[in-house]
Amino acid sequence: MKLDKLVGERFKEKPADCSVDSHAFMVRGGYLKYVANGIFSSFMPLKRVTKKIEQIMREEMDAIDGQEVQFPVVMPASLWQESGRYKSIGKEMARFNDRNDSPLVLGMTHEEAAVHLVREYGQSYVKYPFMIYQIQTKFRDEARPRAGLIRVREFTMKDAYSFHTSQEDLEDYYAKCHKAYERIYARVGLPEVISVASDSGMMGGNLSHEFMLLTAIGEDSIAICGECGYRANVEAAECVLDATENGESKPLTKVHTPDSHTIEEVCSLLKCEQTDSCKAVVYQRNADDSYVVLFIRGDLEVNETKLTNYLGCDIHPAVITEKSGIVAGFIGPVGLKAKATVLYDRSLMGRNNLVCGANEQEYHCTGLDMARDVKNAEYHDFAKIVDGGICPVCGKHAISVSRGIEVGNIFQLGTKYTKSMDMTYLDKDGNSQYPIMGCYGIGVGRLAAAIAEARHDNYGPIWPISVAPWQVHLCAVRADDSDIKAYADGLYEKLQNSGIEVIYDDRNVSAGVMFSDADLLGVPYRAIVSPRNMKNGVVEIVSRDKTFSKTVALADAADAVVELIRNELNVARV
Amino acid sequence: MKLDKLVGERFKEKPADCSVDSHAFMVRGGYLKYVANGIFSSFMPLKRVTKKIEQIMREEMDAIDGQEVQFPVVMPASLWQESGRYKSIGKEMARFNDRNDSPLVLGMTHEEAAVHLVREYGQSYVKYPFMIYQIQTKFRDEARPRAGLIRVREFTMKDAYSFHTSQEDLEDYYAKCHKAYERIYARVGLPEVISVASDSGMMGGNLSHEFMLLTAIGEDSIAICGECGYRANVEAAECVLDATENGESKPLTKVHTPDSHTIEEVCSLLKCEQTDSCKAVVYQRNADDSYVVLFIRGDLEVNETKLTNYLGCDIHPAVITEKSGIVAGFIGPVGLKAKATVLYDRSLMGRNNLVCGANEQEYHCTGLDMARDVKNAEYHDFAKIVDGGICPVCGKHAISVSRGIEVGNIFQLGTKYTKSMDMTYLDKDGNSQYPIMGCYGIGVGRLAAAIAEARHDNYGPIWPISVAPWQVHLCAVRADDSDIKAYADGLYEKLQNSGIEVIYDDRNVSAGVMFSDADLLGVPYRAIVSPRNMKNGVVEIVSRDKTFSKTVALADAADAVVELIRNELNVARV
Repeated sequence: MKLDKLVGERFKEKPADCSVDSHAFMVRGGYLKYVANGIFSSFMPLKRVTKKIEQIMREEMDAIDGQEVQFPVVMPASLWQESGRYKSIGKEMARFNDRNDSPLVLGMTHEEAAVHLVREYGQSYVKYPFMIYQIQTKFRDEARPRAGLIRVREFTMKDAYSFHTSQEDLEDYYAKCHKAYERIYARVGLPEVISVASDSGMMGGNLSHEFMLLTAIGEDSIAICGECGYRANVEAAECVLDATENGESKPLTKVHTPDSHTIEEVCSLLKCEQTDSCKAVVYQRNADDSYVVLFIRGDLEVNETKLTNYLGCDIHPAVITEKSGIVAGFIGPVGLKAKATVLYDRSLMGRNNLVCGANEQEYHCTGLDMARDVKNAEYHDFAKIVDGGICPVCGKHAISVSRGIEVGNIFQLGTKYTKSMDMTYLDKDGNSQYPIMGCYGIGVGRLAAAIAEARHDNYGPIWPISVAPWQVHLCAVRADDSDIKAYADGLYEKLQNSGIEVIYDDRNVSAGVMFSDADLLGVPYRAIVSPRNMKNGVVEIVSRDKTFSKTVALADAADAVVELIRNELNVARV
Repeated sequence: MKLDKLVGERFKEKPADCSVDSHAFMVRGGYLKYVANGIFSSFMPLKRVTKKIEQIMREEMDAIDGQEVQFPVVMPASLWQESGRYKSIGKEMARFNDRNDSPLVLGMTHEEAAVHLVREYGQSYVKYPFMIYQIQTKFRDEARPRAGLIRVREFTMKDAYSFHTSQEDLEDYYAKCHKAYERIYARVGLPEVISVASDSGMMGGNLSHEFMLLTAIGEDSIAICGECGYRANVEAAECVLDATENGESKPLTKVHTPDSHTIEEVCSLLKCEQTDSCKAVVYQRNADDSYVVLFIRGDLEVNETKLTNYLGCDIHPAVITEKSGIVAGFIGPVGLKAKATVLYDRSLMGRNNLVCGANEQEYHCTGLDMARDVKNAEYHDFAKIVDGGICPVCGKHAISVSRGIEVGNIFQLGTKYTKSMDMTYLDKDGNSQYPIMGCYGIGVGRLAAAIAEARHDNYGPIWPISVAPWQVHLCAVRADDSDIKAYADGLYEKLQNSGIEVIYDDRNVSAGVMFSDADLLGVPYRAIVSPRNMKNGVVEIVSRDKTFSKTVALADAADAVVELIRNELNVARV
C-alpha cells in the first residue's frame, strides 16, 4: 500500500473530545471516524488491525473445537420473550417494529439465538459437549459511550456458547476457554491481561470471570490481594470488616443537629468517627419508583451491583419527595415511616453506640444499638471493598484497588437459558435433562483500543506485529531524488513479493512529516531509504519502539527485513 | 472436522416451505436455520462457504486498489436526511429511536456513510481516484422475503464506493470493476453469470448493470437479443415497436358493449385485434392515493419501473371508487373526467382506428385517432419488452426473455450523493467541484444460494472447490472395523497436516447414510475407505459431480489426494 493513496487523514493536534490516548491516536492517525454517539466508521488501518485480532480469536476458538456459525443481528422479540430478557433488559436493547408491526430487537448478546440454533440438534446426550461461536456486529444502547472504542454502542464481538451435560464438563471446558483467552491476549501482544472474578449481571449464572487490562483509564475497579493473589471486580468482591469493640450501650438519645445533613457534617458536629455512624442511602426501583432505604456504616460506600442483584431489578438514586415520608438528611432506622424496602449492610451487624438520623428535620440520634433498637433486621453484604481493606480469601489487610479495562469475559450460565427456552436432551438413561451452558465474549474494537492504550508512546501507538496494520513502514526520504525512488521502489516490490505487508511512503514531504505519520500508524518496523543512507550504501531498519536499530547494505536490505519480520511473527505466534 | 461433532442436522425429506432447491438443500444439509421471516442463522458449513466467498471478493477488490473499511450497521437518521433518502425510501428501511429519542436507521446500503467517511479526506483533486469497500451485515425490510437466501431481510454484502474527478475516470474504473466482478463469479464457480443493463432504482445515477445468473427460479426477467448480444433487465429495456399501417381514419363512434370490461372481451366483441385497441391501466400514488391513468396499446403490458421512474414516486394498482369519476372497464382518452395524471405510451403515437373506452358504463368507442382526438398528448416509453420483440440496439425481432437471479450490481452514481451531502474538492485550478461516484455491490448469501442453485443434482449441492465448506470428505465405511478405523484415522491426520480441509465421517452408520450426508454437504472430492477397498489395498477417490473416479494404493492415498486438491485449487484460482 502506498501511503499517499491511503484514505484517511493524519494530523498533529490532539482533538479536544478525546479523553484517552487510544482514542486520540485513532482519530489523529486516520483509524476511525465518529458517526454518532458511540458509533464509528473504520478506515483501512483499523480494519486491518481488527481483522488480525479476529483471525487470532478464530484460530484459538477453533483450537478448542469451536464451530464458527452466524446469528442474526436483527432478531424477533419472541426469542427474547422466551428467555424473559425482553422484559428484564431495559433501554440498552434497541427495539423496533417491522413493516408488519412485528416487534424486533437488535442483538446485544446471543444466548437466545444460540439456544434457538441448536435446540433440535442437541436432543441426545451423545451430541455433547459442543461449542459454537460467531464474530458479529452487536448494538447496545449504552447510556454513556466514552473513550473512543473503549465504550461504544455498536461493536464487533466474538461470542461463544458451549453446551454440556454436567457441571464438571462445563467446568473443564470453562478452564480450557480461560486458557484460550490467555493465549489470545498473549498473541495480540497483551500477556499482562489478568482474569478476575466478576459479577454475572444480566447474563445470569453462577460463576464468571472478566479479563482485565490494568490501566488508570479503565472504567472498572479491581480488588487485588497482595498476599494471596485474590482478584475480583470490586462489583463482585465481598466486603469483609474487622471485628469492632463495642462499649456498653448508651440509651438512644435525640440531639439537635441543624444544618447537618451529610454524615461528615453530623460526625464532625457530634465529634464521633464515621465508623461509629449509621448512614442511609436511598434508591428508587426503575420500574415503579418505589423506594429502597439502605443503612450502612457511615464510612462505607454502597456497591450498587450487589444491591441490584439482591433486589433483582434496576435502581437509580432516589429523588426524595415530601410525600414519601422520608426526611432527607435525617434518615434513621428507628421510627422511619416511609413506605420503602429497608435493608441493612453487614457492617452494622451487632454494632451499638451509633449516630443515626432521627427521621425528623434537624434531629439525629446517638446511642443506636442495632440489636436492641432494630429488631428483626436482616444483614447482607452491600458494601464496596476498599483499598487497604481485608481480603475475603486470606483475611489479610492486603487489598489494593486498581483501575482496569475489561477486555473479555466468560460465564458459567448453568441452565438459565436452556430451562427458560425449553431446550432438553435425553440422557443415557432416557431421562429428559436441561443442558448446562457457558458463554465467552471478547469485543474486537475494545481489544484494539486496549492494545493501543497499553502500547504507545507520546507519538502514537506501537502495534505488536501480530495485529499491526502493516509489518514494515518503508520511508523513502527525498523520493524526488531518482536514485532514492528507484531503490525504494525496488525494495517495496521485493518485500511485497516475499509476502511482507508494507506501507510505502514515497511522498514528497519532509522526513519530519514522514516520521510523525509513521509514528501514528505504529507499524513495528521502519525501513528508511534516505540520501545519507544511500551515500553510506545502507538502509536503516529501526523498530517503532526504538529498542532495535540496524543498518544493512543496500543489496541485503530486502532479505534482512524479510528475515526480521518472519522471526518476529514466529515469536508472536508462540 | 469430524462429522459426528458437526453441529446441525441432515435429513432426507424436502421441507414443505422450500420452493427452490438451494433453500431445500441448505435446510436439509444443516446449513442454516430459520429465525424469522427473511432472517436466518448459519451453521458451520454455510459459514465456511460464505467466508470463502468473502475472501475471494476481498482479494478482487484489493486487486483494483480497493481499501477495506467498515461502516456502521446503525446510523443516525441525520445522515440519510442529508441525502434526502430518509424520506424517499419507504418501509424497506428499519427505523427506531435510541434511549435519548434520537432517530436511527439500519443500513440497507452505505452511500451516505461512504460520503461521510471521506468528506474531509477528499478535499483536493490529488487524492482521487480512490475506492473503499466493506463486507458488512445489512437489513432491508423486504415485503416478500422468499426462496431461502435468495431474498432475505438480513444479509451480508460486499459494497464498494469509488470517487472520481471526471466521468471518464469513473467509466474507466467502472469497467475495471466490471472485470473484477467477472473474476469473482468465475472464481466462485459461476463463470456463466452475465451482466445486463439495469434500472438504477433508488440508487439514482445514470448507468448501471446487474450481474445475472440465468435460472428458471430467478425473480428478474432479462431481455437478451439473440442477434447482437444486447442484454437488459426487462425493467430497464426500451420497448421498440414495428411501424404500423394506418388505414383512413373513421369517425369516433360510441358502441354499446355490455359485460365487456377487459380489453380481450371488448376486442372479441368488436372483432378487432388487441393491437388496434387502446387500454387504460390505473394506478395510485402511494403518498396521497392520487390517480394515474396510463393509456397503452391493448396487447402490451406496463413496465411499472419505467412508470415509477417517470413519476418519481412509488405507486400501486388503483382501487377505483365511484367518487373518482373513473368508469372502471370503460376508460378512454376522450371525455375522461377524472382528476388524474393522464399518460400515454409510445405504442399509441400516431395510431388511428382504435377501440377504447367511452368513459360511460357499457360503452366503448371505435375509430379513435390519437392525433385528431387527443391533442397535446405526450408519449413516453412505458411498455414492457416482450419475448420475440424488437431489439432496441440492432432492431431485429430477436429478443428472448429469460429469468435470472441478480447476484451483483454496479452503478454510476454521478454526483447525486456528493451534491446532496455537500462533499467537494478543489480541482487543479482551485475551483470547487463535486466528486463523481460509483458503487458496486454483491450479496454474499445470495451468491452462495445461486451457486447451489446452479451446481447441484438431486441429492444436494455440488460446491466448486473454491467455496466448498471442505475440500475432501473422508468416509470410513465400517469404522467399527479396527483396521479401517486405524487407516482412515491416519489418512485424516496426514491430509490435515498437509493443510487440506477434511470432513471425516467415522460414524457407525451405513454407507447409504454416510453417502447421502456427504451428498448434502457437497464437498467436491470424496475419499472412501471401506472393507472392499481395504481388501483390494486401495482408497477410492471420487468427485461429487461423478466426473472423476479413481482408486489409489493405500500407501499413496494421502499424496494423491493432496495433489488432486492442490491442482484443483490452482485451476480455480486462475
